[in-house]
Amino acid sequence: MAVDEKRFLEDLHKLRQFGASGVGKGVIRPAYSEADIAARHWLAGRMAEAGLTPHFDPVGNLFGLAEGPSLLMGSHSDSQPEGGWLDGALGVIAALEVARSSEQPISVVSFQDEEGRFGVTTGSAVWSGELDLERADELTDHTGETFGCARASMADCAASFVDPGRFTGFVEMHIEQGPSLDTQGDQIGVVTDIVGIRNMVVQFDGQQNHAGTTPMHLRRDAFQALSLFNTRLNDQFRNVVTPQTVWTIGHVDLHPSASSIVPGRARFSMQWRDGDADRLARMEEIIRNTASDIAAQSGMELSYGSLLGLEPVAMDHKLRKALEAAAEQIAPGRWRRMPSGALHDATNVSRMMPVAMLFVPSIGGISHDFTEDTAETDLVAGLKVLDCAVQKLKSSM
Amino acid sequence: MAVDEKRFLEDLHKLRQFGASGVGKGVIRPAYSEADIAARHWLAGRMAEAGLTPHFDPVGNLFGLAEGPSLLMGSHSDSQPEGGWLDGALGVIAALEVARSSEQPISVVSFQDEEGRFGVTTGSAVWSGELDLERADELTDHTGETFGCARASMADCAASFVDPGRFTGFVEMHIEQGPSLDTQGDQIGVVTDIVGIRNMVVQFDGQQNHAGTTPMHLRRDAFQALSLFNTRLNDQFRNVVTPQTVWTIGHVDLHPSASSIVPGRARFSMQWRDGDADRLARMEEIIRNTASDIAAQSGMELSYGSLLGLEPVAMDHKLRKALEAAAEQIAPGRWRRMPSGALHDATNVSRMMPVAMLFVPSIGGISHDFTEDTAETDLVAGLKVLDCAVQKLKSSM
Repeated sequence: MAVDEKRFLEDLHKLRQFGASGVGKGVIRPAYSEADIAARHWLAGRMAEAGLTPHFDPVGNLFGLAEGPSLLMGSHSDSQPEGGWLDGALGVIAALEVARSSEQPISVVSFQDEEGRFGVTTGSAVWSGELDLERADELTDHTGETFGCARASMADCAASFVDPGRFTGFVEMHIEQGPSLDTQGDQIGVVTDIVGIRNMVVQFDGQQNHAGTTPMHLRRDAFQALSLFNTRLNDQFRNVVTPQTVWTIGHVDLHPSASSIVPGRARFSMQWRDGDADRLARMEEIIRNTASDIAAQSGMELSYGSLLGLEPVAMDHKLRKALEAAAEQIAPGRWRRMPSGALHDATNVSRMMPVAMLFVPSIGGISHDFTEDTAETDLVAGLKVLDCAVQKLKSSM
Repeated sequence: MAVDEKRFLEDLHKLRQFGASGVGKGVIRPAYSEADIAARHWLAGRMAEAGLTPHFDPVGNLFGLAEGPSLLMGSHSDSQPEGGWLDGALGVIAALEVARSSEQPISVVSFQDEEGRFGVTTGSAVWSGELDLERADELTDHTGETFGCARASMADCAASFVDPGRFTGFVEMHIEQGPSLDTQGDQIGVVTDIVGIRNMVVQFDGQQNHAGTTPMHLRRDAFQALSLFNTRLNDQFRNVVTPQTVWTIGHVDLHPSASSIVPGRARFSMQWRDGDADRLARMEEIIRNTASDIAAQSGMELSYGSLLGLEPVAMDHKLRKALEAAAEQIAPGRWRRMPSGALHDATNVSRMMPVAMLFVPSIGGISHDFTEDTAETDLVAGLKVLDCAVQKLKSSM
């Protein structure tokens, strides 16, 4: 039985009525909001109609369980406080449609709080054991409400955690949330890996001084050190990075931050992402060496905050090959392999089973915004690739 | 009659007992504080003992008036909230000692609120007509108290504004508040000009974006634009500036200032100072051209806040020559001509009469801090240069 494009698109548009923002196709459906809980109950009903057994776990992750061992597919249906209609929702509804039409046993999942009202990919993090439930319960949103209190609002339907051993693997379809596919006119991206991330605060301490009476050659100006560091770093990275590597100085805090005072301190964030753990380490070495050189040259004290990070996750070879073959069949010449620069539930799920991911284009690279959108032909192409890959997986078994 | 070094130093140390901070020689004597008003009344008594007529004007400027036409000398006796013992005080006490010992008619002044609790050099600005008294009265300090209310605390002693026509010129001695004299081992600086200052806010607007999914070559990163602008500007200035020119980026505000977001906006202060108005204008041209080039190259929108500034003030030739000749006599080979990078009351007074300034070294270039200090031999050398210059001015008349 083939996937039903019309039913798939109708369900996708039905889902966006829960928490519709009134602005374009945008939605306001943060984790545990009334709209989110209502959407999950509607989804549970659609799962039951598809012959799956709906199952809410203690944190609000919603599974539609097939009988016996099955492939798990899905994503999340919660949104950013001002979100788009596809981020997460696409992967859940596409999984539902494939489960409905496939002869293979397919289970469906909508993880809870992927968007991080309380943390980062909270629902899948708890399920995978990455995050203790006790610790999770103490997390708070920006209003001070705890995760423990929020998940209590779904206690009436909560059952036990689902045994991950019943799933043979996990496939997550998602919008790219970046501009690569859209810019290049490609329709499908098969994810090679979810990039690792490193985050570190760097601080230069020079000498705060009078901006009128301190000659340039006697200054120990922390902003000048930061600027020099940035320029040198961009240069040093040139022979190490790939076109997929990214690095960002997004936060800068000068002290005392006054127009008439030579800034004595520059504290800034340094973040870098890459799919290769060795390259992440090599970049760290370059960052530290460059900062040391600049500090010595500019008369700065140099200090660092903790290095935080997540390791890169490589996609499972067999699942990925099935997606690639399906992509070549459905969108010949219009697909590419690419890393995911954003985090996804698949990162957590990879602790328990083989995972793979599929991207469709985001128009203009826009996401986490009411204007987020993808051409319906691309949404359908993604659905077909998913379905086709499932069939290929069956034939390879 | 020669100046009395001992009496001069004793008075200087007496003055620092008003608002003594208990930390080194530091003082806490902001404008109109109890300590400031008490110090002014003590000064008025010392002026009377010196045969001068003490006179408080409506804003609390304290004059010690000689009879008939006279040279005016002095500075200010208010301090920063955490100030040094010499900033301002030195010029007042040195003027008092010269007035006491000189055969020439010398008047003495201690201006009020030079340190800008309410504005910038408020007392001399009002006296010179640079600032309307009505507008000044509306100025507030950081607690919200108005200048009008603060000066009312001295209403019991306030008389009329002093006619500037009775003074033939103004000489202000001051600590350098910078490192130049100290670094080079010089004892005296004869000021050539008080530099002009230009202040402007510059803003680059690029594209805020996801720091994981936005490839480097598609970014419009406002921090990168700022860093590039800074580097290019330093390079462009090289053939235009003198060793006395300074320029500073002291305030930087990135938006949204998050480690995982490519910053879409950089708003920063650009300040530059020089003694030559043409050079200030040439620097402005370079700043605007460089910012335009960087904006075009980096895909940024460029905008500016208002250009604020004060014009450079050249010291009076005759007064300056007398100081130079005196410096060569008292400290042969250990004096130099130099601009003042900081603002002083002399800037305002120059609207009404010829002015000149004399610097002595600040140890380590430190000022506006409890640790501010100058070797007593240097303080005395400054006093002697002042006294000697007054004698030379007489003989040239």
